Amino acid sequence: MEPTLNMFYGISIIVAAIAFLFAAYLYVWVKRQSQENKRITEVAQLIREGANTFMKREYKILGVFALVIAVLIVVFLPTPIWSKGAEIWKNIAMAVSYICGTVLSAIAGKLGLVVASLSNGRSAEAAKKGIKPAFLIGFRGGSVMGLLVVGCAVLGVSAVLLVVKEASILLGFSFGASSLALFAKAGGGIFTKTADVAADLTGKVELGIAEDDPRNPAVIADNVGDNVGDVAGMGADLFDSNVAAMTSALVIAQTLTGGVVEHLNVMMVLCYAALGLLASILGIATARITKNGTPTKALNSSTYVTSALFLAFTAGATALFGFSWHIWACSATGLIVGVVIGLATDYFTDDSKPIVKKCAGASKSGPAFTILSGFSYGFLSALPAMIGIAVSALVSYKICGTEALIAEYGANYPLFGISMAAVGMLSIVAMIISNDAYGPIVDNARGLAEMGDLGEETIRVADELDSAGNTVKAVTKGFSIGAAGLTVISLLGTFMSEANAAGANIAGFDIMNPTVFFGILIGAAIPAVFSAMLILAVDKNAQKMVKEIHRQFDTIPGLKEGKADAKPDYDKCIDVATTGSLRDLIPAGLVAILATVGVGFIGGPAAVGGFLLGNIVSGLLLSLFMSNAGGLWDNSKKYVEAGNEGGKGSEAHKAAVIGDTVGDPFKDTAGPSINTQITVVSLVASLLSAIFVQFNIFG
Amino acid sequence: MEPTLNMFYGISIIVAAIAFLFAAYLYVWVKRQSQENKRITEVAQLIREGANTFMKREYKILGVFALVIAVLIVVFLPTPIWSKGAEIWKNIAMAVSYICGTVLSAIAGKLGLVVASLSNGRSAEAAKKGIKPAFLIGFRGGSVMGLLVVGCAVLGVSAVLLVVKEASILLGFSFGASSLALFAKAGGGIFTKTADVAADLTGKVELGIAEDDPRNPAVIADNVGDNVGDVAGMGADLFDSNVAAMTSALVIAQTLTGGVVEHLNVMMVLCYAALGLLASILGIATARITKNGTPTKALNSSTYVTSALFLAFTAGATALFGFSWHIWACSATGLIVGVVIGLATDYFTDDSKPIVKKCAGASKSGPAFTILSGFSYGFLSALPAMIGIAVSALVSYKICGTEALIAEYGANYPLFGISMAAVGMLSIVAMIISNDAYGPIVDNARGLAEMGDLGEETIRVADELDSAGNTVKAVTKGFSIGAAGLTVISLLGTFMSEANAAGANIAGFDIMNPTVFFGILIGAAIPAVFSAMLILAVDKNAQKMVKEIHRQFDTIPGLKEGKADAKPDYDKCIDVATTGSLRDLIPAGLVAILATVGVGFIGGPAAVGGFLLGNIVSGLLLSLFMSNAGGLWDNSKKYVEAGNEGGKGSEAHKAAVIGDTVGDPFKDTAGPSINTQITVVSLVASLLSAIFVQFNIFG
Repeated sequence: MEPTLNMFYGISIIVAAIAFLFAAYLYVWVKRQSQENKRITEVAQLIREGANTFMKREYKILGVFALVIAVLIVVFLPTPIWSKGAEIWKNIAMAVSYICGTVLSAIAGKLGLVVASLSNGRSAEAAKKGIKPAFLIGFRGGSVMGLLVVGCAVLGVSAVLLVVKEASILLGFSFGASSLALFAKAGGGIFTKTADVAADLTGKVELGIAEDDPRNPAVIADNVGDNVGDVAGMGADLFDSNVAAMTSALVIAQTLTGGVVEHLNVMMVLCYAALGLLASILGIATARITKNGTPTKALNSSTYVTSALFLAFTAGATALFGFSWHIWACSATGLIVGVVIGLATDYFTDDSKPIVKKCAGASKSGPAFTILSGFSYGFLSALPAMIGIAVSALVSYKICGTEALIAEYGANYPLFGISMAAVGMLSIVAMIISNDAYGPIVDNARGLAEMGDLGEETIRVADELDSAGNTVKAVTKGFSIGAAGLTVISLLGTFMSEANAAGANIAGFDIMNPTVFFGILIGAAIPAVFSAMLILAVDKNAQKMVKEIHRQFDTIPGLKEGKADAKPDYDKCIDVATTGSLRDLIPAGLVAILATVGVGFIGGPAAVGGFLLGNIVSGLLLSLFMSNAGGLWDNSKKYVEAGNEGGKGSEAHKAAVIGDTVGDPFKDTAGPSINTQITVVSLVASLLSAIFVQFNIFG
Repeated sequence: MEPTLNMFYGISIIVAAIAFLFAAYLYVWVKRQSQENKRITEVAQLIREGANTFMKREYKILGVFALVIAVLIVVFLPTPIWSKGAEIWKNIAMAVSYICGTVLSAIAGKLGLVVASLSNGRSAEAAKKGIKPAFLIGFRGGSVMGLLVVGCAVLGVSAVLLVVKEASILLGFSFGASSLALFAKAGGGIFTKTADVAADLTGKVELGIAEDDPRNPAVIADNVGDNVGDVAGMGADLFDSNVAAMTSALVIAQTLTGGVVEHLNVMMVLCYAALGLLASILGIATARITKNGTPTKALNSSTYVTSALFLAFTAGATALFGFSWHIWACSATGLIVGVVIGLATDYFTDDSKPIVKKCAGASKSGPAFTILSGFSYGFLSALPAMIGIAVSALVSYKICGTEALIAEYGANYPLFGISMAAVGMLSIVAMIISNDAYGPIVDNARGLAEMGDLGEETIRVADELDSAGNTVKAVTKGFSIGAAGLTVISLLGTFMSEANAAGANIAGFDIMNPTVFFGILIGAAIPAVFSAMLILAVDKNAQKMVKEIHRQFDTIPGLKEGKADAKPDYDKCIDVATTGSLRDLIPAGLVAILATVGVGFIGGPAAVGGFLLGNIVSGLLLSLFMSNAGGLWDNSKKYVEAGNEGGKGSEAHKAAVIGDTVGDPFKDTAGPSINTQITVVSLVASLLSAIFVQFNIFG
C-alpha cells in the first residue's frame, strides 16, 4: 500500500479517540460500582478535597511559571527575535506548542486523579466480596489514567506535527510536558513522602498504632500524597517520557530526510506510537485475575500480552507499508530489553526472591545493617539495567549502522534506530501507567478499608492487592527509567543536530576534549544535587509535620487515647505538606535548568554535550539505585510484618521500618524525579542550542 | 643552566635519601620517647601482633596473585611474545617493574605500620604531660610513613626510568603499586570496619560501655583495624596515586618528544616530584602546635606551608632550568584547587560548621532522619569537588592548548598540562600522608589511654587529638580523590596513546558513538558494584563477629560484668576479621579488572575509552559522596557526644550512632577504595591496549 502522512495522522486520531472512548467507558463502569459505607465515602471525600486543594495551588504556581517560560520562548526560541533571519511565527508556534504540552500534561494528571479518587473507596468496598472485583476496580481506575495520558500524547504530537509540519517545534511541546512533569513529580513527591514518613513515625513507631489508623492526624495527608505524588505526578512523568521519545524520534527522522516531513520514517514513528496504544487498549481490556491467579500475575501477564501484540502489530504494519525491518528490529530490541530490565528489578525487590529476605535478615542485627544491606543491593541492582540500556543502544546502532544503510539514509540512521528502540520500550506505556496507577489506588483502598472498619478479611484482601502494586511498581519503574535512558541518548543526538543547524559544526563530543569533560563532571553532579535537595525537603517538611502531629496529640483531649469524639485536624497536616512541597519544588527544578544554562554559557555546545552525557549516566545510576533500594526496603519491611525474622514489634521490625522510612523519599521522591530531570535538561539544551552556539565564554 | 636528565636522577635520589634519613631520625626520636605503663605496653604489643599476623597472611595471598600477574605480563605485555616484532626484554622489564611496584608498596605499608604501632602507646603516655608532646609523637610517627612512601615513589620511578629509559614500562611499576593498593585498601578496609562496627554495636549500643573498654573482645581487633586499614592501606593507596600521577605525566611527556627521554618535559616531572617531597620534608620538620594553637591548626598550617614552599621551589626551578611557565601554572592550579576541594570537604564534615550541626539536629527525630540528612549532604558535598576537578582540567587545557604551544609541542601538550596539574595536586602528598596516618595513631592512643587507665584528663587530651585527626582526614581525602580524578584523566590520554601506538588510530572517544557509550554505561556501574561488594563484605563479617562476641559474653564467666580475672579471647575476634577480609577482598578487586577486560574484548579500544570515562565519573561522584557522608556522620555523633542535642545516651545519640555505623564502611572501606579501583582499571586498560586493538568482537 502507498502510505501517506495524512493516513497516519488519521490512524493516530482514531486510536486516540478509541482510547478516550474506552477510558470514558471504564470511568462510567468504575463510577457505577457501589459505594455505600458512609465512613469510607466521607474519608474518600476528604482525600479528594485535599488532593484538589493541593493541585489547584500547585497548578497556579506552575501556570505562572509556564507563562514566564512561554514569554521567554517567544523572545528567544528557536532564534532570538532580533536575529537576522528570525521567523517570528516559529517563535510563536514554539510558545503555543509549549503551552499545549503543559496543559495536556496537567489535564492528564488531573483526570487521573479524579478517577483514582473515585476508585479507591469502591475498590475497598468490593474487597468485601473478594479479590477479583476489588482488583478489577483498582486496575480499571488506573487504566483510565493510562489511556488518557497516552491518548493525549499521541494526539498532541500528531496535532502539532500536522499543523506546523516541523518536528523541531515539538521540542517546545515536549519541554512543556517535561517542565510540568518535573515540578509535578518533585512537588507531589515531596508532599507524599512528607506525609508518609511523618505518619509512620508518629503512628507506627511512637504509638504503635496501625498504618491507617484514623486517630493519626497525618493519615488523610498520607492518602492525599498517594494521589498527588504517585498518581498525578507519575502520570505527568510518563506523559513526558512518552512525548520526549516520540519527539526525538521525529526530529531525527526529519533530519534524515533533510527536513522533508512526508516520509516513511516520520510515518513509522506515528504508526508505532499509535499501535503501541492500540496494543495497550487490548491488553487493558483483557486484564483480569484468572482462576487460581494472583493480582501480580494478572498485572504481569497483561504486560506480556500487550508486548506481544505490539510486536505483532508493528510487524504487520512494517510489511504492509514497507517500513524498514531494521528499525522494527530496534523497536523490538528496546521492548524486549525493557522487559528484561523489569525482571531484573523484580529480582531485587520481590519478597519471594532471596534479596529481600537477606535484607530482612540483616535487620535482625539492627538498623545500620538494614541500611547497609539495602544500600549495597540497590547499587548492585543498577548493573543489569545499565547493561540492558547499553546493549540495546549498541544493538540498535549495529543493526542500523551498516555501510549500506548509512549510505542510503544518512549518518544519523543509527541514532534513529536508537530513538526507535526508546519508542519501542515505551510503546506499551499505557499499560505501564495502568499498572502504576493501580498501586496508589489499592494503597488508598487498604487505608479506607482500615478506616471504614471493613473487617480483617477485607483488609487482608486489600493488603494482597497493595503488595502486588508494590511489586509491579518496581518493574514498571525499571521500565520507565530504561526508556528514559534511551530517549535521552537520542535527545543527545537531537541536541547535536540542533546545534549544527545553528552553525556549530560539531561532529561529536570527544571525551578527551576538556571542555566536554568539564561538562561531563558538572552534569554528573547535578542528579546528586537535585536528589539531595528533594530528600532534604522531605526531611525538613516531615520534621515539621511530626511537630504538628505532636501538637495535636498534646492539645486535643482524648485523641491519643482514641476516644470516639476526639477528632484530629486533618486539614492542618495537609496544609503543612502542601505549603512545604510547593515552596521546595521550584529551587530543585531550577538548579537543574540553570546549571544547563550556566554550562552552556561557559563552555558552549561542547560543554553542554558533555553535561548531558554526565547527567544521563549519573542520573540513570542514581535513579535505578534509589528506586530499587527503596522498593527493597519497603518489601523487606512487609516481609518482616508478614511474620518473618521476628515479625511485627520485634527489633528486626523496628530496623526494617527505619529502612523503609529512608527508602520512602528514595523511591517515591528523588528516584523517579531524576528521570524527569534528565529529560528536562536534555530538552533545555536542545532548545537553547542556537544561543549557546552564539554566546559562550570558552567554547 | 643547561639541565640534563642525569642531574634530575641525581636530585631525585638525593631528596629521597634525605627523606629516608629524616624518616630514620623521626623513627629513632619516636622510639626514644618513654613507654612505661605496663598495661599499655602489653596492649600495644597485642595490637602489633594482630596487625603483623594479618599483614603476613595478606601479603602471602597477594604475593601469589602478584606472581601470577607477573607471569601473565611476561607472556602478554606490552606485546604477546609470539607477536611479530615482540621484544622479549621489554616483557621481562615490564614484569620486573611490576614486581618492584608491588614490593615497594608492600614495604612502605609495612614500615608505616611498624612505626605507627610504636607511636600509639607513646603518644598515649605523653598525653599525660599535655597535648603538645602527645601531638608531636602522633604526627612524627605518621610522618615516618609519609616520608617513606613518597621517598619510595620518587626513587622507584626514577630508578625504573634510569634503567629502561622508556616511560611506558613505568605502567607496569604503577600497576604493581595499584594492584597491591587495591587489595590492601579493600582488605584492610573490610578488616577495620568489620571490627569497628562489631565493637561499637556490642559495646556502645548493647552494653553501654565505652568505646575502648577492654572487656569488649573486639577491642584489640578494632585497634588492629586502624593500623592495617587506615595506616597500611592508606599508605599503599597514596603510594599508588603518587606513582600513577608521575607515570602518566612521564608517559605523555615522552610521547610529546616522539620517544626521546632526554627532554625538559621529562626532567620537569622528576624535578617537580622531588621538590614536592622536599617541601613536605620542610613542612613536616616545622609542624608543631603553636602557643594558643590547636592540633587541627597545626596540621592545616603545615599543609599550607608545604604548599607555599612547593610553589616557590618549582617557580625557582622553572626559572633556573628554563622549564615551561605554562606547565608551572598548571601544577599551581592543581595544587590550589586541591586546597579548595579540601576546604569544601571541611565545610561539610567539620563539627564547628553548620552542616554537622544540622545532621546532629536531624538525629533528634530518629535514625531515618540522620541517614537521610547525611545522605543528602554527602551528595551535595560532591559538587564543589567535581567542579574543582573540572575547572582545573579545563584551566590546564586552556593554558597549554593555545595554537602556538600546540604547534611547538604537539597535540598532546594540553594533556601534559592536565597530568602536571595532578602532579601538582599530589606534590605535597608526603605531608598529606603524615596528616592521614596521624589519625589512626592518635585514635589508637585514645584507646590505649582508656585501656591503660590513664585518667580522665589524659583521655580528654587524646580525644582532642583524635577529633583533629578526623577533621584533617576529611580534608586529605578530598585532596586525594581530586588528585586521583586528574590522574585518571591523564591516564585516559595515556590509554589513547598506547592504543594508537598499537595501531588503533583513535583521535578521541566520541560519546555519540554507541560503542563508546556502551562502555560508559558499564564503566559507570562498576564503582557502584565494587563498593556494594565491599560494604556487603563488612556487613556480613561484622555480623559474624557480633555472633562471636555474644558467644564470648555467654561462655566466659564474669566477662560481661567486668570481673578482673575474666579475659576475653581477643585473638578469636582478630581471626574472624582476618579470615573474612582476606576471603572477600579478591572478588571485589577482580570484578573491576575483569569488567575492563570483558568490555575490551567486546567493544575494543573505543568501548574501553568510554568504560574508563564512565568509571572515572561515577567513581569520583561515589567516592566523594561516601567519604564525606561517612565523615559527616562520624563527626555528628561526636558532636552529640560532646553534649549537644541531648548528649550521650539520648535518643539523638542512638540515632547518631546508627548514622556513624552506616558511615563507617562508607568512609573507610568503600569510599577510599574506589579511588584505587579507578586507577587500577585505567592502568589495566593502558597495559592491555594492544591486545584490545587486536582482539575484539564489535570494535
